[in-house]
Amino acid sequence: MPRYKLILEYDGAPYSGWQIQENGPSVQGALETAVKAICGEDVRVHGAGRTDAGVHALGQVAHCDIAKHFVPGRFRDGLNAHLRPHPIGVLSADIVADDFEARFSAKKRHYRYRIRNTRANLALDIGRVWRLPRPLDSDAMHAAAQRLVGKHDFTTFRDTECQAKSPVRTLDQLDVVRNGDAVDILTSARSFLHSQVRSMVGSLVWVGEGRWNADDLASALQAQNRTACGPVAPPDGLYLVRVDY
Amino acid sequence: MPRYKLILEYDGAPYSGWQIQENGPSVQGALETAVKAICGEDVRVHGAGRTDAGVHALGQVAHCDIAKHFVPGRFRDGLNAHLRPHPIGVLSADIVADDFEARFSAKKRHYRYRIRNTRANLALDIGRVWRLPRPLDSDAMHAAAQRLVGKHDFTTFRDTECQAKSPVRTLDQLDVVRNGDAVDILTSARSFLHSQVRSMVGSLVWVGEGRWNADDLASALQAQNRTACGPVAPPDGLYLVRVDY
Repeated sequence: MPRYKLILEYDGAPYSGWQIQENGPSVQGALETAVKAICGEDVRVHGAGRTDAGVHALGQVAHCDIAKHFVPGRFRDGLNAHLRPHPIGVLSADIVADDFEARFSAKKRHYRYRIRNTRANLALDIGRVWRLPRPLDSDAMHAAAQRLVGKHDFTTFRDTECQAKSPVRTLDQLDVVRNGDAVDILTSARSFLHSQVRSMVGSLVWVGEGRWNADDLASALQAQNRTACGPVAPPDGLYLVRVDY
Repeated sequence: MPRYKLILEYDGAPYSGWQIQENGPSVQGALETAVKAICGEDVRVHGAGRTDAGVHALGQVAHCDIAKHFVPGRFRDGLNAHLRPHPIGVLSADIVADDFEARFSAKKRHYRYRIRNTRANLALDIGRVWRLPRPLDSDAMHAAAQRLVGKHDFTTFRDTECQAKSPVRTLDQLDVVRNGDAVDILTSARSFLHSQVRSMVGSLVWVGEGRWNADDLASALQAQNRTACGPVAPPDGLYLVRVDY
């Protein structure tokens, strides 16, 4: 039975998140319905990252096993056709080795968080960025962010409902880059805890606004206590960009 | 009476275009209503470019004269507040010299046209790009595009309802740049004819799909005849990026 690796782009706004839930539509549910429509098979689609409600993806990865055989490209085209009008695009659907696991084979996950630092109303970026009107010192944010890079106990920066056994993660990258009024936060790690990126972003914004300095951020990390975290950034600005295997 | 220069970002989708029209909402109309709400004045807001229905702006410029005096930044903030929930952002509103004219003082206009060359459904880019599933040869498009650069009679590439006295324009730049499945067309000129960018883009897509070669595009230009034009690209992918003075 061939295993397919899917690469997906989606607008997270209309979904309760990646994972099938009782309280609303999910990306996973939309995909499984599309697979069923094409193959007639009840198939589980496994994702690399369980993005939260409202979080977007430019390159989410998933896998599924289906009995039906397709000529190359046909499964991708069929999924796209059956997903419409969902804002979910299947960029590719290729056969991979049977031991490929979207979640467990992942070597690195890359996220991007987009801020618009402007007093203007959002227009083209509504639902796509976090608008912050107060001037952000992005250099200070970037410098402070380096205190979070490396192997740490990230208890402060994970949701209290996070189900990971260990709060220890190794953060490979946390860069803050300004381009005009756009402030991007780029981060990568083998894996992240629940709400970790949004928790780090919210705390970095406090640094950018001058409420915290780099030492305050480091202290928050060292506290290993959720109550030491800054605000959690809204999902609108968060994108799962790519997963490396 | 101070003259203000406004720099504007907007999502063109909900509007019949920049200009006030009887058949639907306009960006100009939304702005004039906001000015009236702030100042109580019936003011005409003049734009640099009359973008068509559905065309977006990242840096449209406009000017208006108002009797009321504001501290710096206050007029911008007031406009943004009164424009909500319109997808129109006032990036800046600064006092300029009395002889500044958004339309007639403009030295160069810059447009960007965004294509996604993919078989996948659009997700985050719905209404923001032209999706084209057939492979586009962007190198061939760029090479052919250079035949349109310079001073020419652009009758072939202007709408039959274009009201400009002369069909002669000087095109300064027409670049086609690919980045993955994103194909961007970047163009600049002192001014453009009605539908000129979308007409050039549609014809370049015929080159990219192999229906036309560079000579066919040059012949279409030389025909000086609207019927020689390729398809007109949809407004979704078009952005007025910047106006230079």
